Amino acid sequence: MSTIKAIEFKDGVLYLLDQRKLPLKKELFSCKTFLDVDFAIKDMVVRGAPAIGAAAAYGTVLAAQEFSTDSKEVFLNKMEQALNVLHDSRPTAVNLMWAVKRMRSVLHDNKALTVKEIFEILKKEAELIFAEDIATNKAIAKYGNEIVPLHATILTHCNTGALATAGYGTALGVVREAHYGGKDIFVYADETRPRLQGGRLTAWELKEENIPAKLIADNTAATLIRDGKIDLILVGADRIALNGDTANKIGTFMLSVVAKVYKVPFYIVAPTTTIDYEIETGQEIVIEERSSEEVTCIEGQRIAPEGIDVYNPAFDVTPQENITGIITEKGIIKAPFKENVLKIRK
Amino acid sequence: MSTIKAIEFKDGVLYLLDQRKLPLKKELFSCKTFLDVDFAIKDMVVRGAPAIGAAAAYGTVLAAQEFSTDSKEVFLNKMEQALNVLHDSRPTAVNLMWAVKRMRSVLHDNKALTVKEIFEILKKEAELIFAEDIATNKAIAKYGNEIVPLHATILTHCNTGALATAGYGTALGVVREAHYGGKDIFVYADETRPRLQGGRLTAWELKEENIPAKLIADNTAATLIRDGKIDLILVGADRIALNGDTANKIGTFMLSVVAKVYKVPFYIVAPTTTIDYEIETGQEIVIEERSSEEVTCIEGQRIAPEGIDVYNPAFDVTPQENITGIITEKGIIKAPFKENVLKIRK
Repeated sequence: MSTIKAIEFKDGVLYLLDQRKLPLKKELFSCKTFLDVDFAIKDMVVRGAPAIGAAAAYGTVLAAQEFSTDSKEVFLNKMEQALNVLHDSRPTAVNLMWAVKRMRSVLHDNKALTVKEIFEILKKEAELIFAEDIATNKAIAKYGNEIVPLHATILTHCNTGALATAGYGTALGVVREAHYGGKDIFVYADETRPRLQGGRLTAWELKEENIPAKLIADNTAATLIRDGKIDLILVGADRIALNGDTANKIGTFMLSVVAKVYKVPFYIVAPTTTIDYEIETGQEIVIEERSSEEVTCIEGQRIAPEGIDVYNPAFDVTPQENITGIITEKGIIKAPFKENVLKIRK
Repeated sequence: MSTIKAIEFKDGVLYLLDQRKLPLKKELFSCKTFLDVDFAIKDMVVRGAPAIGAAAAYGTVLAAQEFSTDSKEVFLNKMEQALNVLHDSRPTAVNLMWAVKRMRSVLHDNKALTVKEIFEILKKEAELIFAEDIATNKAIAKYGNEIVPLHATILTHCNTGALATAGYGTALGVVREAHYGGKDIFVYADETRPRLQGGRLTAWELKEENIPAKLIADNTAATLIRDGKIDLILVGADRIALNGDTANKIGTFMLSVVAKVYKVPFYIVAPTTTIDYEIETGQEIVIEERSSEEVTCIEGQRIAPEGIDVYNPAFDVTPQENITGIITEKGIIKAPFKENVLKIRK
């Protein structure tokens, strides 16, 4: 039901909706070679872990297309190099590594076939990765919609929509499902400083599909929560520990504290691939600190004095006791989280 | 001890540090006529309620200077008009109305004197208003410093410094007093979306005086509070109700909720003129909603999609139960607030 296509592979070209230009311009960025995809990931033409994974899978297909006239031996050699380049295009996105690993494994399993046959199989695998991500989002949205009231004002943080995934979105996917299913939905979207993914991307997605919404400065959320104007808070996740502690975009934790005090349901919305079974609690999650320019400059324009020090963590950790539930494609996980997270793994 | 002069009257000219240009440029804006002052207040060359009051007082002096060659009757007539213009230069700043009323009253009390004598008396009154505001800030700072530990990391919101007052500041005045008194002070300054007074002005004041500090996106404060990195939160006030409920820059309430949950002292710092004895609780305070462009644009650059609706309240109300104390020039007011607010009035 979403009209937004952030990623499309057509006639041998990967078209990406250029997220550097949004919301001011709706421009397609065409990738004709795997190096175009490498650039697009590096420069954040495409962003959001699942979206990056799908783009890298198609990058592999473009590589196979480029090398299609080479001999089998040269082809296989060049493909390995292309996969390495795509793997390293960004350092932290888990889905990127996962997608490249999956494409490499398909390549290895089929190296006895002809170059043309391998290309076709890689293309099918990329299409599968893409389709699976959308299917996962749809399943998440279906489960999520169960806890959305018939009339609901929903608060969101960051961008968790069609732009961050192969399509539809996670937390914003639940919003879509409820809206298109006929519920009376109103969204307050946190602009999400410092990178403004809420103001730039979520607001754009909502406007694009005419879902009733207002954009707010992050500072405004608490008053809305206290005054009973928010029925439900839906946020994404970057990494979920075994006990339910969740790392997500900076500002998520603050919302969770206010939500708990004023008893507003606070849900994490993410695919089960976001669960890190290797870590017991959020204390083991290392928080990436990013460039000070994200805070001191906007669009190349300085908005803070030269030389001021900045503390700019990209994420924070919301403790499990502040989380009402974790909405996944396998159902909604509730406390006791560890027990139920392990149950869903099976 | 502060080196920042935001307002200076010298040789018949009012010099204002142009706050539209900060932090990128440190430029003086010269007012030679009362209409220059009217423009400076309207266009926010000068901002912050006490600073606006002092500027308007000097605006009256400039008017008297301009009309000094007129006959007494013409002089008095033109002065009334000038006072009306200054009174209306901004609608909500209580200190502006208060300062204009005080200057008008001095004019009326002395209309039997010569034009030259009236000019001298008005000039003295403006200098008094200016000096009184600094003295008030110094008294606030002295009381405030009593609750600042020897080693303290202090979180601030918005700009409450030399730029918002005749000098020294309210909450930032307490920071200055502690720092210059030899305490080991570190400041985390909220950038304070949407207008970024923290990032533009507070960060500039701290950098200018080499007070150790880091600028943060507002979303970052909660994690710092939880992790025990903040010893004390000091914020200003726009209006304080009889029961202690306090209206201040949007985002203040959110900080107060997190501070209460994690037991970090949360103080309001303001002169007693900020107390509105006419209202019992914060529920009577009408919250001004400002232009959507404050959220959707920065420095004329759009950062959100065209047509997106925005909710942009300028202030929020922090309930008295979240407030540890109110630091004023007459001492620190603690709960029960109503009883102690009335006591301090006497």
